[in-house]
Amino acid sequence: MTAIFATLALVHPVSAQEAAPAVAEAVAAAPAADAPAFADLAAFEASPGYTLFTVNNTWMMVAAALVFFMNLGFACVETGLTRSKNTANILFKNTIIPCIGILTYALMGFNLMYPGGDGGGWFGFAGFGLGFADDVSGLTSVYNAGYTYWTDFLFQAMFAATAATIVSGAVAERVKLSSFLVFTVLFVTISYPITGMWKWGNGWLNTMETPFYDFAGSTLVHSVGGWGALAGIIILGPRIGKFKDGRVLPLLGHSLPLATIGVFVLWLGWFGFNGGSVLSANPGLVSLVLVTTSLAAAAGGVGATLTSWIMLKKPDVSMALNGILAGLVAITAGADQMSPGDSVIIGGIGGILVVFSVFFFDKIKLDDPVGATSVHLANGIWGTLAVGLFGNLKGGAQIVSQLKGIAAIGAFTFVFCLISFLVIKAIMGLRVSAEEEIEGLDIGEHGNEAYPDFTQAHHG
Amino acid sequence: MTAIFATLALVHPVSAQEAAPAVAEAVAAAPAADAPAFADLAAFEASPGYTLFTVNNTWMMVAAALVFFMNLGFACVETGLTRSKNTANILFKNTIIPCIGILTYALMGFNLMYPGGDGGGWFGFAGFGLGFADDVSGLTSVYNAGYTYWTDFLFQAMFAATAATIVSGAVAERVKLSSFLVFTVLFVTISYPITGMWKWGNGWLNTMETPFYDFAGSTLVHSVGGWGALAGIIILGPRIGKFKDGRVLPLLGHSLPLATIGVFVLWLGWFGFNGGSVLSANPGLVSLVLVTTSLAAAAGGVGATLTSWIMLKKPDVSMALNGILAGLVAITAGADQMSPGDSVIIGGIGGILVVFSVFFFDKIKLDDPVGATSVHLANGIWGTLAVGLFGNLKGGAQIVSQLKGIAAIGAFTFVFCLISFLVIKAIMGLRVSAEEEIEGLDIGEHGNEAYPDFTQAHHG
Amino acid sequence: MTAIFATLALVHPVSAQEAAPAVAEAVAAAPAADAPAFADLAAFEASPGYTLFTVNNTWMMVAAALVFFMNLGFACVETGLTRSKNTANILFKNTIIPCIGILTYALMGFNLMYPGGDGGGWFGFAGFGLGFADDVSGLTSVYNAGYTYWTDFLFQAMFAATAATIVSGAVAERVKLSSFLVFTVLFVTISYPITGMWKWGNGWLNTMETPFYDFAGSTLVHSVGGWGALAGIIILGPRIGKFKDGRVLPLLGHSLPLATIGVFVLWLGWFGFNGGSVLSANPGLVSLVLVTTSLAAAAGGVGATLTSWIMLKKPDVSMALNGILAGLVAITAGADQMSPGDSVIIGGIGGILVVFSVFFFDKIKLDDPVGATSVHLANGIWGTLAVGLFGNLKGGAQIVSQLKGIAAIGAFTFVFCLISFLVIKAIMGLRVSAEEEIEGLDIGEHGNEAYPDFTQAHHG
Repeated sequence: MTAIFATLALVHPVSAQEAAPAVAEAVAAAPAADAPAFADLAAFEASPGYTLFTVNNTWMMVAAALVFFMNLGFACVETGLTRSKNTANILFKNTIIPCIGILTYALMGFNLMYPGGDGGGWFGFAGFGLGFADDVSGLTSVYNAGYTYWTDFLFQAMFAATAATIVSGAVAERVKLSSFLVFTVLFVTISYPITGMWKWGNGWLNTMETPFYDFAGSTLVHSVGGWGALAGIIILGPRIGKFKDGRVLPLLGHSLPLATIGVFVLWLGWFGFNGGSVLSANPGLVSLVLVTTSLAAAAGGVGATLTSWIMLKKPDVSMALNGILAGLVAITAGADQMSPGDSVIIGGIGGILVVFSVFFFDKIKLDDPVGATSVHLANGIWGTLAVGLFGNLKGGAQIVSQLKGIAAIGAFTFVFCLISFLVIKAIMGLRVSAEEEIEGLDIGEHGNEAYPDFTQAHHG
Repeated sequence: MTAIFATLALVHPVSAQEAAPAVAEAVAAAPAADAPAFADLAAFEASPGYTLFTVNNTWMMVAAALVFFMNLGFACVETGLTRSKNTANILFKNTIIPCIGILTYALMGFNLMYPGGDGGGWFGFAGFGLGFADDVSGLTSVYNAGYTYWTDFLFQAMFAATAATIVSGAVAERVKLSSFLVFTVLFVTISYPITGMWKWGNGWLNTMETPFYDFAGSTLVHSVGGWGALAGIIILGPRIGKFKDGRVLPLLGHSLPLATIGVFVLWLGWFGFNGGSVLSANPGLVSLVLVTTSLAAAAGGVGATLTSWIMLKKPDVSMALNGILAGLVAITAGADQMSPGDSVIIGGIGGILVVFSVFFFDKIKLDDPVGATSVHLANGIWGTLAVGLFGNLKGGAQIVSQLKGIAAIGAFTFVFCLISFLVIKAIMGLRVSAEEEIEGLDIGEHGNEAYPDFTQAHHG
Repeated sequence: MTAIFATLALVHPVSAQEAAPAVAEAVAAAPAADAPAFADLAAFEASPGYTLFTVNNTWMMVAAALVFFMNLGFACVETGLTRSKNTANILFKNTIIPCIGILTYALMGFNLMYPGGDGGGWFGFAGFGLGFADDVSGLTSVYNAGYTYWTDFLFQAMFAATAATIVSGAVAERVKLSSFLVFTVLFVTISYPITGMWKWGNGWLNTMETPFYDFAGSTLVHSVGGWGALAGIIILGPRIGKFKDGRVLPLLGHSLPLATIGVFVLWLGWFGFNGGSVLSANPGLVSLVLVTTSLAAAAGGVGATLTSWIMLKKPDVSMALNGILAGLVAITAGADQMSPGDSVIIGGIGGILVVFSVFFFDKIKLDDPVGATSVHLANGIWGTLAVGLFGNLKGGAQIVSQLKGIAAIGAFTFVFCLISFLVIKAIMGLRVSAEEEIEGLDIGEHGNEAYPDFTQAHHG
């Protein structure tokens, strides 16, 4: 079996190890091309590679659509795992964040993350707005072997939107809406693209001797979201009633069906998140990625179920759900480098880890209503490290590079978010009033009720 | 940037401006082909263009599946924005309408909309049932460059089903089930295909000097549904309790999570609705369409949020949701002709427009529980007009053509629906009794309860 | 019209009639290939067939993703049609079953179902774990014309997971969780793959003179799940309160929106279930399959609606929903062999059958909360038989073969499940206590509440 994986890795050095930077290089190359490879689109369409390009681009568009759909997954998970009095507020946040994310990413995020040229080093910017030199290269394989400029933007914009959404769940049920929207704009427009560029935009993490490896974003997307979540819950403090007289009180989520719908939608979306990160429809590589992704998700679900069954005497449904997400986050950094066996181990450990992490955050009195820090931060770090411990890339030098990437991106993001939250808190306040928190943010922030026809007994 | 769009428009005259009529022409051409291009399917599969045809057809099938899924989106939006006592009834309607729509479209709708020959002029009909001349051309590129006869039917049938579903939300909570089903059969079997043919079946709107342009159906699908909705609510009158003593009372929707799920499913489905309307997997054109579609949706969400925030002092969740739909409807007519900047403007205006439109319909005492007229009619018209104001086709002659198409299709549809509703009302009644309306249609029409385990307080 | 279908059947003997066994043969062929067709992946990628292979594989991956999504469909249907006090339990089962199913299918199910060599006869096993001989053939068209080894596993694993999930709904609201999980492991790891091999693994049902035909699994997946469901409800007995003093009391499902979401998700998933069973992206065949599938679903919905309307005086929503599923199950065995007209008849009869079947099971006092036996068993049998009565394969010899397959697979599965349930019952018990059943399994099995914020009135 190992031989196959070695072959895959050998034959696909570009799509596997150096796939992401290829984007930056292509962008860089395009405007410089005095002699474009194709005189016009008709010439490209008549060329031998056009059909394969069309297949690749079709898969990437499907993948982008699936990643878009993850926004619904996050909305459902977060709503389901919080109380009904804050439902409208959470739905609103998770609806408007992708809208804001897509618009600001078009305005400047995309060009911060993929500045082109020789790549970004520590910082680069290719200017405001979408568009590039006025030739057809952005729509042909001159831009990229796998997709057009538009598909590239769409796929990357959907990633940015999901990163922004991760923070939302952790700060739910007490954060002031307007303040959080300001944070979201800063986070998705500045912080996420800068650290993303360090690797995917051919920045310093990608050009160092043993490049940091993060296939689809255990660190660049998930732990980045997780660091933002951690900064948020530290500054915000816990929800009223969560920690009382040294005890941890459960503030139960109001709808397990919603949470379950969310997890299945996220798993489906991850087929695009990881499968699309191959950046082409390469049959062997994409199908391997879907298998490792699914095996890790399944192992995460089983791992968390068994752990919670042992620790709580009964299998907890939300732990099983978070276990699946943990497995998915953990496999994301190395989904193209692992064997099926590796994937089961990585995902299974992810499922165990998420349960202990939830207990840990409760113990240190950091209140994260949906477990976003445990799913995305703890498992984002675990999955990134696992690339150095399992699979094709394992080894000491890789472990060091993985630690460098985790630390550098973590430090930048955490500090950026901490400062952002503190400044926002000083200027406009970060938390709703205690009365509003007790009454629910649906009325306070929106004047809406999520379930006006149903008799509800608000607890907590 | 403009240069790129010009290039796109220049190089793809067929797929952009004349894509839809190509269907009709291919259908027309196929039976007449005494010497079919391929002796049998094996000959086609051995031909050089087979692989590209397979890619195109694969994308079109995925697009058809996504458009099918929009029926769930409509079901969730309409259910979520109405009261729990009418939930089973709305779910039933939105489940059975696509069933009826697909069956009747197979029986005759498809052949009314795409009569073939030289196109339809004002009316044409290619006979009952599916099928065509008994050679293999319908399964090869002789039929169409992008898909088989079966894919064509499937994609078009899903469009017809969504058009029928739009009316359902507006007349909800008071329309008699059997009467509405009769209307649906008339609407989807006769009205929708006839006006659809005028443009997509190569009818008079397509053959006039400056052809009317409606890329994916701002007018042909959405405003057609919207005109049906308007006719319905005029004849039906408002729900009991909506307008009282000169005041407008809100009859709140019972589940914002359902409404939000619906909007995300619709946005996802729109990737197929607009992306599939390219009628091939053309990489540059489809990916541009997905980007303009997403930017318009995002801008619509932000536009409606800001408008409702200013007017109501707080951001209203259902307005944000309807703003996304408004942006999607507005970009649909010109999704392949706009730059990213154009799309943001068109979608943003759509988001503002939908809020004012909702207030306007309340003001003139037309009761539309879900805002279908504001989303699909107001923005269907706006988006169709926008093709003459922005993008590759803008100009005076185009504006005139757009107005002609809006007026002609609107007049036909509105009169057809008005007469249909009036005749149905005279023969079998159109509205449930006041007692049934107050008790809820779930019991009255179905003997079902949507939520028997939950304590509910019916208001309104 | 018939000519077209004949042509399709004539030109595609491999993909239509013998598609599935081709898998087994390819697996068998691969390790034996001393001279692999491609020296390495680079050689394959440079070969003329690479692009078509990539298209086929892309479609198959999309299909696998859609089949995966069916697990959410089943979760929603089953949860929606049962009482709120058992919601967490059902969600948990339907979440963890696909996890277990995917893992055990990787461990041994896949190699039991597709043992390779000359096929399986009655039983075969290719060893534990995933992987095959260490050359590149599994990632090229040497393995299969339509997909890689990984895609094959993924698609088949998702099928196995859905089969396991079907049983879950029938035994809901009273089965002990741990006992049911043990059953699931036995069922998905041993029973499902063995009978699946008889046909799709080139076993005796495939090699007999007139081969048994089951395109996508009316028998191999759906009736197999249905037989497991029947065995389960016989051993378990009815829920408390279902049959009282000779009367049948309805124990109403608690959420019609959930049930409706589930049915739409299943219909969407069926595009992958049936469309992917072509085992390539063949344009004519896949698009025909999507059309027959959709027409049968629509006819099933209308058939069940009319039947329930006549029998109950009002159209029942859950009957309409189950009618759609019935139509889908019924068309599955012959979706690639039927004309549109045949599909409407097969689906319509399925819709009528499901209503009578539900009444029949009530009459003989077998309690199936969600109607899984009526949907999957009754219609799985009907659809398999229909292959001998309609379409390209109709005829006496085919009817005999269909009956043989139905009987053999039914007998094996029913006996296997009966014994499994009896042994589990003897060793660890199969049913929760009466107190737990009345209180609800959410508290008893999980210590969870699905809807803690809502006031609920538990009936039954």
